[in-house]
Amino acid sequence: MIKVGIVGGTGYTGSELLRLLVHHPGVAVSVVTSRADAGTRVDAMFPQLRGHVELEFASPDTPALSDCELVFFATPNGTAMQHAPALLSAGVRVIDLAADFRLDQVEVWEHWYGMTHAAPSLLGEAVYGLPEINREAIRGARLVANPGCYPTAVTLGLLPLLETGAEAGLVDKDRLICDVKSGVTGAGRKASTGLLMAEVGESFKAYSVSGHRHQPEIRANLRRATGQEVGLTFVPHLVPMARGIEATLYAFLTDDRTDLQTLYEQRYADEPFVDVMPSAAALETRSVRGTNLCRLSVVEPLGNGVVVVQSVIDNLVKGAAGQAVQNMNLMFGLDEALALPTVGLVP
Amino acid sequence: MIKVGIVGGTGYTGSELLRLLVHHPGVAVSVVTSRADAGTRVDAMFPQLRGHVELEFASPDTPALSDCELVFFATPNGTAMQHAPALLSAGVRVIDLAADFRLDQVEVWEHWYGMTHAAPSLLGEAVYGLPEINREAIRGARLVANPGCYPTAVTLGLLPLLETGAEAGLVDKDRLICDVKSGVTGAGRKASTGLLMAEVGESFKAYSVSGHRHQPEIRANLRRATGQEVGLTFVPHLVPMARGIEATLYAFLTDDRTDLQTLYEQRYADEPFVDVMPSAAALETRSVRGTNLCRLSVVEPLGNGVVVVQSVIDNLVKGAAGQAVQNMNLMFGLDEALALPTVGLVP
Amino acid sequence: MIKVGIVGGTGYTGSELLRLLVHHPGVAVSVVTSRADAGTRVDAMFPQLRGHVELEFASPDTPALSDCELVFFATPNGTAMQHAPALLSAGVRVIDLAADFRLDQVEVWEHWYGMTHAAPSLLGEAVYGLPEINREAIRGARLVANPGCYPTAVTLGLLPLLETGAEAGLVDKDRLICDVKSGVTGAGRKASTGLLMAEVGESFKAYSVSGHRHQPEIRANLRRATGQEVGLTFVPHLVPMARGIEATLYAFLTDDRTDLQTLYEQRYADEPFVDVMPSAAALETRSVRGTNLCRLSVVEPLGNGVVVVQSVIDNLVKGAAGQAVQNMNLMFGLDEALALPTVGLVP
Amino acid sequence: MIKVGIVGGTGYTGSELLRLLVHHPGVAVSVVTSRADAGTRVDAMFPQLRGHVELEFASPDTPALSDCELVFFATPNGTAMQHAPALLSAGVRVIDLAADFRLDQVEVWEHWYGMTHAAPSLLGEAVYGLPEINREAIRGARLVANPGCYPTAVTLGLLPLLETGAEAGLVDKDRLICDVKSGVTGAGRKASTGLLMAEVGESFKAYSVSGHRHQPEIRANLRRATGQEVGLTFVPHLVPMARGIEATLYAFLTDDRTDLQTLYEQRYADEPFVDVMPSAAALETRSVRGTNLCRLSVVEPLGNGVVVVQSVIDNLVKGAAGQAVQNMNLMFGLDEALALPTVGLVP
Repeated sequence: MIKVGIVGGTGYTGSELLRLLVHHPGVAVSVVTSRADAGTRVDAMFPQLRGHVELEFASPDTPALSDCELVFFATPNGTAMQHAPALLSAGVRVIDLAADFRLDQVEVWEHWYGMTHAAPSLLGEAVYGLPEINREAIRGARLVANPGCYPTAVTLGLLPLLETGAEAGLVDKDRLICDVKSGVTGAGRKASTGLLMAEVGESFKAYSVSGHRHQPEIRANLRRATGQEVGLTFVPHLVPMARGIEATLYAFLTDDRTDLQTLYEQRYADEPFVDVMPSAAALETRSVRGTNLCRLSVVEPLGNGVVVVQSVIDNLVKGAAGQAVQNMNLMFGLDEALALPTVGLVP
Repeated sequence: MIKVGIVGGTGYTGSELLRLLVHHPGVAVSVVTSRADAGTRVDAMFPQLRGHVELEFASPDTPALSDCELVFFATPNGTAMQHAPALLSAGVRVIDLAADFRLDQVEVWEHWYGMTHAAPSLLGEAVYGLPEINREAIRGARLVANPGCYPTAVTLGLLPLLETGAEAGLVDKDRLICDVKSGVTGAGRKASTGLLMAEVGESFKAYSVSGHRHQPEIRANLRRATGQEVGLTFVPHLVPMARGIEATLYAFLTDDRTDLQTLYEQRYADEPFVDVMPSAAALETRSVRGTNLCRLSVVEPLGNGVVVVQSVIDNLVKGAAGQAVQNMNLMFGLDEALALPTVGLVP
Repeated sequence: MIKVGIVGGTGYTGSELLRLLVHHPGVAVSVVTSRADAGTRVDAMFPQLRGHVELEFASPDTPALSDCELVFFATPNGTAMQHAPALLSAGVRVIDLAADFRLDQVEVWEHWYGMTHAAPSLLGEAVYGLPEINREAIRGARLVANPGCYPTAVTLGLLPLLETGAEAGLVDKDRLICDVKSGVTGAGRKASTGLLMAEVGESFKAYSVSGHRHQPEIRANLRRATGQEVGLTFVPHLVPMARGIEATLYAFLTDDRTDLQTLYEQRYADEPFVDVMPSAAALETRSVRGTNLCRLSVVEPLGNGVVVVQSVIDNLVKGAAGQAVQNMNLMFGLDEALALPTVGLVP
Repeated sequence: MIKVGIVGGTGYTGSELLRLLVHHPGVAVSVVTSRADAGTRVDAMFPQLRGHVELEFASPDTPALSDCELVFFATPNGTAMQHAPALLSAGVRVIDLAADFRLDQVEVWEHWYGMTHAAPSLLGEAVYGLPEINREAIRGARLVANPGCYPTAVTLGLLPLLETGAEAGLVDKDRLICDVKSGVTGAGRKASTGLLMAEVGESFKAYSVSGHRHQPEIRANLRRATGQEVGLTFVPHLVPMARGIEATLYAFLTDDRTDLQTLYEQRYADEPFVDVMPSAAALETRSVRGTNLCRLSVVEPLGNGVVVVQSVIDNLVKGAAGQAVQNMNLMFGLDEALALPTVGLVP
């Protein structure tokens, strides 16, 4: 049994990690921390875990973390970078579910996250934890930067269009449009008037229209995967539901001879967690609720030179905790799919 | 008091017309029809109208319709075109809230609506009822085609960008992207498994991705307003809420010297029902819930050559019944804003 | 025009007062306060009021309050009792939408609200603002205690059963059961993890089962109205919706000769805001959404000696701001129904 | 592997059975029927099952049903009673998730279900499938009547109060009040205007107040378990959410010396799917979402002689498909808990 710890266990990614890990046959969660709730039983805060977790929240200063083989940081941005160096030195591997190690350029990171990076020397070592582009590197990693939820959905949706070896490419790389929508858990579990049910229920809105932190992360992913800079506009929206991301991605075709359905099916044929829908099929966020799947659909509406890709994930699973477990499985040589649900809870 | 009738009073646009008209000081609703529910009291089906409507639903064959000065058709597509000619001959004016008279080219209409048009000779006479582009024509009209909900939100959002007299134009007219989202009342009040709360709650999806009837209507509006053909991709989505449309509109700028905020503010300075938000303000569908307003916001994210316009309306009001009442006010020489709410019910 | 002020304008009852008062032909809102947001434009926080309110939030220490003829307190419990005495001395009338003056026994108040009452001498003067039992007293009042939302729904639902002059009474007064359900706005607009959409959406729960502050308020109302003590069990629940209260009230009949439908219809025949539904009709909270109505239904299921009363209100209108405006209308000799909506926004 | 069939696989209980059974290590689903959708792939209708179910819906007349060892009926009331006799004769065991075999008195059944019973002779043989009261009988049964959703929640909530051997009993058996609330999946997956999201979203209501079919089922359960008739009032309500039932149960104590918390904990100490919460703990429907658990809480508010029991289940799992799988496990000598989830999907 691999001994793992979770730092920041009272948020949605923390409790989702617990939901997945209590069913994992190769893992024992030995410590879950929370500064504010140290001493509280985990199942008093999360009754859905009664009978499965006997721990109390520990202080984040607990030495028990150093006894783990792996520590997940399910903390706000800026926390993991403070504590990862000591854990790594102690031989503990680290998966950060926040953004601290997602960008490899420190000045870009500091611009978007508005703070000084505490461990810039680790940015080069950290492996970006999207198995569909980085599987081998993840297997050998000590430190994995778990991707953002939007970047997971968008990157998986755009990859096949941009990886093509064709000279001119398939699409206009400078004019990508990413219109993305997320349920409210994407904003975390924090006391904020703006996230009250009475504020976000029965309403819909765009936010961060003038610039969102996931835009540079997506651009970096696509640059890494294709060797080229892309120009993309990224507008996130808030949907009155708890879980789920839908990305509608628009690209202008420069080559109309490629069969896009086949392109997508072949790209993801061996991926356990990417499912390309048959042409024209419905694609609802709920079909992946609670699962580690990304479902994709590709359509060329009215044959007018624009390709529309739909991509859906559960932001807390493939967009966060599930992908972290997938990365853990790879890092420890386990079956990549172990303990990861693939049947959506519908309705 | 203007005597008005409503054909098809049991759907959401019909009941919304009643909600607005019971407060209208210049109108008396004298007949509301429903084939299936003839004989039922209106307030037995719609208890929210108790004390305000004493009518029973009448058969749609009732001669009382001919005694009206104005008849609203709140019926499915294909009904108004059957009955409008006789009413017009009898001197009754008509506002159709469905699509029968929205397109002026009969072959385009028949292609998208999949039926033979019963009154093609009226397509030329019908006035497209978007006051912001057709106010004078509406005042004199006998027959008004009330716009679709999406076309209202999208057209008002794009107009200022496309009306410019600048030679090269402001934006690339061939590459407009319209990513639109609607609450479930947009699909009407019909017994359909796909609209059950257990099917559409807690989920989000695109639909009609390969082509939606509102796309040609929007293109026709923009052609009418600007004298030019445009190329646009239009993808609608379903939001788990009852009312509201949000359109996120993307255009590639070809001229970066125009102050877009000023352009929008000036275009709509005299419009009673279009409200341009200050730059960077939040724009939620609920801010217009129950009102006849269209709220707009215009942003150029990261200064990267793309303009993003957000447009929100209540699909049942400015997108249907409210706009119909606005048109009625114009047709009968009343104050255009009479009986039309402008304070959103929040939350 | 009556000059009114609102203390605590950033909560749901505050913004709802503004929604109602901007349409009131006899009132001018001259000051709205908020300690935290002083200096912010009201319509920057509440865009739904754009075009209707030109004020900025003022500090609660502003002398402008003393220039008002009436001040509404839309504040947390414990605020109005601090400031009402000075305002009353200055000749300003006061309506408190919180609980400070709802109970006439200071020790009961202090027990349930956990603080020392700052103005116990006013408890005797304050008039409980439920017009259906206190209309005349409200007309002459300087200080009105606006009822709680649950007590409004429950009291109106039980009154006809308990007011009867019959010797033995109609029902067992010691065994009343009140199972009540509220939308989330009942908890106010405060940053609290427990009210996040991700916490209360798609779930249902009882709360405060072992005792809720509205229980003694209801008992006091019924004692006042009937001269007798009652025994009642009161369990509130949270519904995943924004607005609305439904109370299902159970009483054991001791007299089966009374026609309950007639009893209810007669009791409320002259009440402008209480609507008794025909027997067996559906009763949904949405039928009163945005209105000042209380709708009631009375049923004796299976003829088994138990009467079940359903009572629905909009907790922010008849349960708060609307009832406050109704009280204001009475206090200033206006038409009691002025500016109070009675057509529900459905859907 | 046990070969099982599902008749009526397109409803919510049918798809929920599939969700559970695809993870069951001892079961192979060999046939799923649907008259209307015969020939359609199951995963075309339920994309959440892609990769897990390769079947097409078969006609209900398929001989494949007779080759099964067990057939689940996930059909409307009145279907299983037509087909169960032939299957039983063919040696196939049957679990009916509808109501056909829940009541043992044919005249009571016919009164409440409004049809003639097609197989009254089986009413005596059918075992009521609530393991917490009937475990041994279920093990040997050929025909199991799976309990209704409300009866499951209410019976488990009331049992400990009524089973007591104390002479006078613990509570007044004639005055039980059951105020129950259900998510919308309880009404099934049928095209009905009344279940549209636009009709039931953002609203709350009671229904069937004058009498609901689950009332006699609950009374029969309690009579069976306690040997005594009880008097109970049962009022169901509709909550704007997909899954979950909460029952708030009121009983008047006749004995105040019993420690109720201990009573409940002892009664259910050995039950794998009943969880008694610590005193005063929160009890939300979501804590059991997707699981086969019933969670209970028992409180005596204000010490006033009334006991309030809260009971929550997922209506599609412990209230339907999960309980059916639990019964199947018992019938086939498997671990009773096999393949049944116990960690709720939160949020």
